[in-house]
Amino acid sequence: MTTRWQGCYAKRTERMISSAIREILKVTQQPDVISFAGGLPAPESFPVNEITRAACAVMAEAGERALQYSPTEGYVPLRQFIAQKMLRYGIVADVDNVLITTGSQQALDLIGKVLIDPNDVILCEAPTYLGALQAFAAYQARYVSVPADNDGMQVTRVEPILRKRKIKFIYALPNFQNPGGTTMSLERREKLVALADKYNVPIVEDDPYGELRFEGEHLPPLVVLDEQRQMKRRRFRGFDCGNVIYAGTFSKTLAPGLRLGWIVAPRQVIQKVVQAKQGTDLHSSTLDQMIAAEVVRPEGFLVEHVRKIRALYKERRDAMIAAMEKYFPRGTHWTHPQGGLFLWVTLPEGVDATALLPEAVANKVAFVPGVSFFPLTVDAPRRKKRGRHLPIGHNTMRLNFSNSSPEKIEIGIQRLGMAITKAMESQAVE
Amino acid sequence: MTTRWQGCYAKRTERMISSAIREILKVTQQPDVISFAGGLPAPESFPVNEITRAACAVMAEAGERALQYSPTEGYVPLRQFIAQKMLRYGIVADVDNVLITTGSQQALDLIGKVLIDPNDVILCEAPTYLGALQAFAAYQARYVSVPADNDGMQVTRVEPILRKRKIKFIYALPNFQNPGGTTMSLERREKLVALADKYNVPIVEDDPYGELRFEGEHLPPLVVLDEQRQMKRRRFRGFDCGNVIYAGTFSKTLAPGLRLGWIVAPRQVIQKVVQAKQGTDLHSSTLDQMIAAEVVRPEGFLVEHVRKIRALYKERRDAMIAAMEKYFPRGTHWTHPQGGLFLWVTLPEGVDATALLPEAVANKVAFVPGVSFFPLTVDAPRRKKRGRHLPIGHNTMRLNFSNSSPEKIEIGIQRLGMAITKAMESQAVE
Repeated sequence: MTTRWQGCYAKRTERMISSAIREILKVTQQPDVISFAGGLPAPESFPVNEITRAACAVMAEAGERALQYSPTEGYVPLRQFIAQKMLRYGIVADVDNVLITTGSQQALDLIGKVLIDPNDVILCEAPTYLGALQAFAAYQARYVSVPADNDGMQVTRVEPILRKRKIKFIYALPNFQNPGGTTMSLERREKLVALADKYNVPIVEDDPYGELRFEGEHLPPLVVLDEQRQMKRRRFRGFDCGNVIYAGTFSKTLAPGLRLGWIVAPRQVIQKVVQAKQGTDLHSSTLDQMIAAEVVRPEGFLVEHVRKIRALYKERRDAMIAAMEKYFPRGTHWTHPQGGLFLWVTLPEGVDATALLPEAVANKVAFVPGVSFFPLTVDAPRRKKRGRHLPIGHNTMRLNFSNSSPEKIEIGIQRLGMAITKAMESQAVE
Repeated sequence: MTTRWQGCYAKRTERMISSAIREILKVTQQPDVISFAGGLPAPESFPVNEITRAACAVMAEAGERALQYSPTEGYVPLRQFIAQKMLRYGIVADVDNVLITTGSQQALDLIGKVLIDPNDVILCEAPTYLGALQAFAAYQARYVSVPADNDGMQVTRVEPILRKRKIKFIYALPNFQNPGGTTMSLERREKLVALADKYNVPIVEDDPYGELRFEGEHLPPLVVLDEQRQMKRRRFRGFDCGNVIYAGTFSKTLAPGLRLGWIVAPRQVIQKVVQAKQGTDLHSSTLDQMIAAEVVRPEGFLVEHVRKIRALYKERRDAMIAAMEKYFPRGTHWTHPQGGLFLWVTLPEGVDATALLPEAVANKVAFVPGVSFFPLTVDAPRRKKRGRHLPIGHNTMRLNFSNSSPEKIEIGIQRLGMAITKAMESQAVE
């Protein structure tokens, strides 16, 4: 109807697509649909009482300050808390290495803003986090991808790419990856950090779920391995010489509604990102930052709280895997995440998860088809040339287990199993 | 010291400069400095009790919801409130025309993100809001400017520019402009809207202070005049055919620490901006949105509250003008704002306000030199060629009157008057 605004939009908007996940979330808000589609933490894991108390305390003791403008870098006690947290990982970062962001989604946006020129190529895993693809696409990034398996990104495939073309940065999500639920092995982490160093390509390490490990041993983040590597060399001059930008968040350990994340990076990177953030939103909510700082102030609170979340999510992952073993037809496979919120299902080759979605929604269960998580890469053959082949990941789906009770998970997986069985049978008939 | 990251940054970062204002804010945080440099609202104007009550009510009644992820478009009751507010201005916009942003600074960032391609030219006033220049510069915008006088942007100078070159949009701040404190006359508003329509150039109307008028008659926003204009034509098909993107904020009427602003625009523009916001920060703080919606829920609360802020700021403007009349040397002039937070001082030609700043800070008073607010325009002669001439606006300064008591204002203006007198004398000696 209206044409006035057509042709007005910047070129970068051509690559902006509404996240399939968020669109599906809208459809599946009816209470009778069991949704494994979203990425929501369990609301019963939020420390509602502690946040209520903190909100009241902050407003009573420092109301005017909590409502006023505040520095772009973030609220100092919160930055100090994060610097201390990193110290426990073994990173000698200080407050100046920490910037508070409006959720870790903004961390990705700001990193894109200061690093990406149009047509710069980013190396990522396939599949990878859709929100990162969205954030970087706004700066007209292009992608090359490396497949991920149970041990995360297949790092042996990285060096040939680094040798062949200029890569702006490597985007990696090493812990309980969204969407795959997989974790990068220590050997691959070390190898990736060494390669990035050798080829002088920065790493953007996205670690929203790192603390939510409910099985196996903690593995050091890439940013730690990079620091250790630099320390072994004579020319090491502190964390500010590092090669990794690390992004974290309170969304999965406290509450996503507060929109609080952070970047830990060499000082000069932080300074650039601060400049970008000034023009982007001036600063993140003063009130929410002060509330978060107050909640995490009691020694050990967050550690103890996260322990509860881990127990909750482990129970739900176990319920989902048990139900899949019971209700999913032979020939389907899934990952076994050691933490986080998601697992990844692979159907037999040729069974199209996207085509299956309407059937599943009719059965009152929802998921996200895996194709959404595969970036369109620089080297990708044009769709036409691929003929009638289905796209990469056509037979995969992402399931979220954090946001449903074990009882709902069992019912939802039963419904989904029926939809999958039906799809596989109708395919066999063809 | 560290060179690893040099050469990594995107081209757009070359134009990102740390806001002079925010840098000065850091220096002038000592309690004995009277700062007219910031743009802070009076903290005593914040409805601390109401926000405390609202925060407790929201957390008690809907804690889990307030802490969970929420839709990118914003919290529906808050969007409804804004749509209703616009209705009072005469705009028949509905919820789908409203997007909640993380402060109106994010509104400017997102507008830049969806509209500006590198080297697109934006028409703005000179001087104009520095934060807008920062937001747009991140998308590599260039500027042409039109001088502003007591009646705002000199609109007669706009048509020759629109005739001569492709303008991406017109950026206007019609009410109590930051930094000038000036207000665009009704005649100029109508003329600007007509010109924008004729040349099919969108207007971005930034209206953070519109409600803070303490003198004179309310003037209709450009978005209203545009709607009226469209309605007179046969081809009018509702607000969605409009030519204006309107940005507002709660920062000056409730509290800036909540980081809540909004965009009102035709639906198809909102849809684009929502896509951009998904990749930028997913959504603004759920908790803060619910608190704001709860605070403004009682019929008439905000209207009544804003009335108090207006009385407070009028008293402070009056105190500043009275003090300037008393302490500023002959030959200095200032604007007489009818609302808002700022006024603009012009010193005699040749007196350099930037050179005066260290003297003022030594006298324990701070301001922002006016040069910061003049965009470097496409047509600007290169600095070298201008020889020893001082830059445009060299003899101007922005003073903020909202954040100091009348007593402090008098003392601060006395100190500043002494610094100005000294600078003028030393210049006379040369």
